[in-house]
Amino acid sequence: MGRPIVFLSDFGLDDGFPGICHGVIARIAPGVRVIDLTHGIPPQNILRGAVVLADAVGFMPEDSVYLAVVDPGVGGSRKAIAIETGSGAALVGPDNGLLSLACAVVGGATRVVAIESDRVLLPSVSRTFHGRDVFAPAAAHLAAGGELDDLGPALDPSKLAQLAIPEPEVGPGRIRANVLGIDRFGNVQLTASGRHLRDAGLDDAGEVVVRTVWQALPVRRASSFGEVASGEFAVLVDSTDRLAVTRNGGSAANAMRVGLGEPVVVESAAG
Amino acid sequence: MGRPIVFLSDFGLDDGFPGICHGVIARIAPGVRVIDLTHGIPPQNILRGAVVLADAVGFMPEDSVYLAVVDPGVGGSRKAIAIETGSGAALVGPDNGLLSLACAVVGGATRVVAIESDRVLLPSVSRTFHGRDVFAPAAAHLAAGGELDDLGPALDPSKLAQLAIPEPEVGPGRIRANVLGIDRFGNVQLTASGRHLRDAGLDDAGEVVVRTVWQALPVRRASSFGEVASGEFAVLVDSTDRLAVTRNGGSAANAMRVGLGEPVVVESAAG
Amino acid sequence: MGRPIVFLSDFGLDDGFPGICHGVIARIAPGVRVIDLTHGIPPQNILRGAVVLADAVGFMPEDSVYLAVVDPGVGGSRKAIAIETGSGAALVGPDNGLLSLACAVVGGATRVVAIESDRVLLPSVSRTFHGRDVFAPAAAHLAAGGELDDLGPALDPSKLAQLAIPEPEVGPGRIRANVLGIDRFGNVQLTASGRHLRDAGLDDAGEVVVRTVWQALPVRRASSFGEVASGEFAVLVDSTDRLAVTRNGGSAANAMRVGLGEPVVVESAAG
Repeated sequence: MGRPIVFLSDFGLDDGFPGICHGVIARIAPGVRVIDLTHGIPPQNILRGAVVLADAVGFMPEDSVYLAVVDPGVGGSRKAIAIETGSGAALVGPDNGLLSLACAVVGGATRVVAIESDRVLLPSVSRTFHGRDVFAPAAAHLAAGGELDDLGPALDPSKLAQLAIPEPEVGPGRIRANVLGIDRFGNVQLTASGRHLRDAGLDDAGEVVVRTVWQALPVRRASSFGEVASGEFAVLVDSTDRLAVTRNGGSAANAMRVGLGEPVVVESAAG
Repeated sequence: MGRPIVFLSDFGLDDGFPGICHGVIARIAPGVRVIDLTHGIPPQNILRGAVVLADAVGFMPEDSVYLAVVDPGVGGSRKAIAIETGSGAALVGPDNGLLSLACAVVGGATRVVAIESDRVLLPSVSRTFHGRDVFAPAAAHLAAGGELDDLGPALDPSKLAQLAIPEPEVGPGRIRANVLGIDRFGNVQLTASGRHLRDAGLDDAGEVVVRTVWQALPVRRASSFGEVASGEFAVLVDSTDRLAVTRNGGSAANAMRVGLGEPVVVESAAG
Repeated sequence: MGRPIVFLSDFGLDDGFPGICHGVIARIAPGVRVIDLTHGIPPQNILRGAVVLADAVGFMPEDSVYLAVVDPGVGGSRKAIAIETGSGAALVGPDNGLLSLACAVVGGATRVVAIESDRVLLPSVSRTFHGRDVFAPAAAHLAAGGELDDLGPALDPSKLAQLAIPEPEVGPGRIRANVLGIDRFGNVQLTASGRHLRDAGLDDAGEVVVRTVWQALPVRRASSFGEVASGEFAVLVDSTDRLAVTRNGGSAANAMRVGLGEPVVVESAAG
């Protein structure tokens, strides 16, 4: 069957863009499985795409070909790249940082090429839809067993665009972080992890204060959503080892009135 | 290829949760087909999930493994279960009633186990994402041909959590039901079925009155959406044999201003 | 594996309708690949469905079976049809024009049948969900290698319902078109193509004026989204060879306050 393709984008599902890419893949690699990770990354939000991709790779088949397209610079000067990694996975997408967090999780880039070969690109390459014309064909080529070198000339792995999740400020009894993600349930995921909680000495706190620009909420420390009463907030370490503010039976994000990137402080209730 | 997996959840499609579960399945059972029934169940709405699942099972392959996750109690005391049914299907999910309506349609539970075996669970089980760590691995194990007993210790099938669709009140010329579902087209599905319509003597009525807290609408009885003029309402028996209020070319739900669970009366226009 | 099925509808993804059709297909043709093109066509918008389907067929496997359901007349007098085309593709759906634009792209209809055979339809055919009961079984039958004639009696290909994209009015320095599509990024696609731009003598214009009922916008001509400054508008020829008004880093549709079908004039900035 070839290698599986894991596909992430900000295309949405209404306009048929992911489906067209599936068609391109099926023509080149008919028996290959495609796993749609998500096409609901907020439009052009490269960091959010990079985080969702990086959180998923640990659960995917080891030889997966990742096809990731969040690409505000399509048609401009950014390169289209394919990366071979230390763990045997491959990553295909724009060189804008989107692939960088996942790449680190799967062993780092061992070889990189620019996707430029006429043998791989579709016959007519548009200026606005490289998912269809450049990235999907390249991923299908690799999934079908093709060589990385077939895609185009080698690039220097050390020169790839890099993203980083902003590091929270951690002091005794206090973490100043930012909103990294808000999921469908309204759980507010922060840029801080379980380690930061320990570093701040808040790991064993029964209660903390969660402070936004709007308000200061006293919040229970918990380990699952239902550990607090219905309607109550909790701070827990989520399934990606990040701090999250949750609300049992409701949306913490709506109640807190926070959006992606906004600052949130978690601090000692004693303070 | 193994048995197909039919996957339903309230995860939504934006955050990558269903895609991660697909990855977990692909690692354990690479050739297995996964049918995404829906991931758009309203968050934590167990009854809605149970109904959508039960309405689908009659159209799925007989040996399907159903993977269903609407799980507000994740990380708490509810058991993770796998059910073998009389028809050869299997059901995997939380023991909160979500599986109960579908289970009855596919022959009832013949054997049940708690999913607890370290040989099946992912190495590290989170407190917040059992879809990934518990349910997807268990479904993949069964789809790949594994035994139910491998998953964990037997449970008593008669002790499983049960849900029921609330029974409408039916009298001569009158049905008092509730809103069971509202689909994308705005069709308002009621808890009443074609049988209730016959019991109320309204089966041959040319017109009925649909009464909500807001208004009393005179509505044509019809058998398809387009049988009434554009903009007109109709009451029909839908493709799941339930009563539905529809509007040709528009949303009946918006016009009626009703939501899930709200009461709706269908009664004789003569009254 | 049989022929791939490419599936488009206005069912949405929340209610489980596409998933149920996948189940029906899997029972009849277990090994067949199904590519979900989109299920997000605006409810009952036949023209939008026809355009998205026609724009995709050139990128799909040549022997694909297209299963398309946007069907406001379900249960009424419109026929359910299956078309064999000049290029080896097949199209299955309602005879309401939905298939007509794609059919022309894949070589036109060589043979057409009405889907009426009891050997193909599900045992009980509802009046409201022919996707499940009529169209999915017919597509699965063809994908599994079945004959077109098995589906039902022949129809006259010249009598099929036809749609057309409204032709824009083109004069020197002026194109009067309509909004054909608005994608997730807010790009406003017009009924005019690159050819119309050349016919109007605007192909080499550095700037044009885009006029709606609300306003007249001076807009740069460009060939990719990022060629203008952030927040700036551009007119470009998109990946389907149609004129589109875009906005770098934002939604042109929101800013222009236009919806599907509304008129837009593109004219010379020289006035």
